[in-house]
Amino acid sequence: MTIALYDLVGAEADRRFSPFCWRTRMALAHKGLGVETIPWRFTEKAKLPQPNAGRVPVIVDGDRVVHDSTAIADYLEEHYPDRPSLFGDDVGRGLARFVQNWTETVLQVGLIRLVVLDIHRHCGAEDQAYFRRSREERFGTTLEEFVRDREARLPAFRASLDPLRRTVERQNFVSGKAPAYADYIVFGAFQWARAISDFELLAVDDPVRAWRSRMLDLFDGLARRAPAYGS
Amino acid sequence: MTIALYDLVGAEADRRFSPFCWRTRMALAHKGLGVETIPWRFTEKAKLPQPNAGRVPVIVDGDRVVHDSTAIADYLEEHYPDRPSLFGDDVGRGLARFVQNWTETVLQVGLIRLVVLDIHRHCGAEDQAYFRRSREERFGTTLEEFVRDREARLPAFRASLDPLRRTVERQNFVSGKAPAYADYIVFGAFQWARAISDFELLAVDDPVRAWRSRMLDLFDGLARRAPAYGS
Repeated sequence: MTIALYDLVGAEADRRFSPFCWRTRMALAHKGLGVETIPWRFTEKAKLPQPNAGRVPVIVDGDRVVHDSTAIADYLEEHYPDRPSLFGDDVGRGLARFVQNWTETVLQVGLIRLVVLDIHRHCGAEDQAYFRRSREERFGTTLEEFVRDREARLPAFRASLDPLRRTVERQNFVSGKAPAYADYIVFGAFQWARAISDFELLAVDDPVRAWRSRMLDLFDGLARRAPAYGS
Repeated sequence: MTIALYDLVGAEADRRFSPFCWRTRMALAHKGLGVETIPWRFTEKAKLPQPNAGRVPVIVDGDRVVHDSTAIADYLEEHYPDRPSLFGDDVGRGLARFVQNWTETVLQVGLIRLVVLDIHRHCGAEDQAYFRRSREERFGTTLEEFVRDREARLPAFRASLDPLRRTVERQNFVSGKAPAYADYIVFGAFQWARAISDFELLAVDDPVRAWRSRMLDLFDGLARRAPAYGS
């Protein structure tokens, strides 16, 4: 059975740059489930199946529609229990939330201030207007101002990765010896940046970069083969 | 069988303030193992059983000596597999490392700049000299200078707790519905501060404070009954 995934795109239909859609994409591959992605743009709210919250990812699995990456991961774990687990046991599932909250309050918050203008550059004309308006309202400043001096902020961003760095320096994956959903959460953020920006986030010898490379290798290079910049 | 735990103290033999010893103390309680604590001071290097690295915790379990809180947790999990698990499965164990690395690179680094002078105040005279010398060398400044303006740094410290805050706002424990070793890692840092400092780290309505209170309740109030300040 193939699951349909509404997946964020910009001007180019094959460049996929939603961190949340990447979580789902990797989770589907982890479960060994077939996927058909449906390119979707910020302003195509009306094209999403119901129910939805006006955002992607949304999946359609037979007659079930599930939206929100976290709800999708829980759905996949519950409905495909015979496939490889995304979370392990209850402790693993609980701790994956901590990694998610770190990703959303530290990593993604740091990344957006480095690459938001690159996202804008990759949107189609209609989406660009929507994206600029909604983000400038959220940030309280222009996109240009928001990313200004990003080179100067890079050392602080890299320092903020210390918990991740120390972890993947000592074990292959965030989740231990093998990747699991917590890895896909963190990786989604890096793949998002990588898809639309050539700004080099990581030093060449950074253990985080080696981990990212291991993630890019998973599932026959699923993420490595996707249109993106750099290493 | 009772396990002996060498446990850091200062001028008062019952005020226990090592974050690493608290990890072990809670882990032993989680496993339902009896413990006899042996008060140990910074300068009593020669009193530790071999092997050790000049620090606590060190445990003695029959004829086995194990040192380093992480090695002790692994030892307890391996040697008492019939007792409640500290980690859950491999994913839970892997992700506990991420929580540990966050605790050691963010939480404890933030805390030491708030309470290091309070630690010094609780040390005995001989330990005070050792503690001041070793820490001032490490920090490259006086203890007084290191904690100066701590009130001004409190908002940034509280903001750094966002990943923890968002997690325990949505589930009772870092590890999910029930506490596990990752909770003891994070709690050890708070109990360390609480044992020697009356500086209020958390706002009254902070979800982290409610979680800390749940941790203080565990094991018949093991940590709540220990000499400490404040709530």
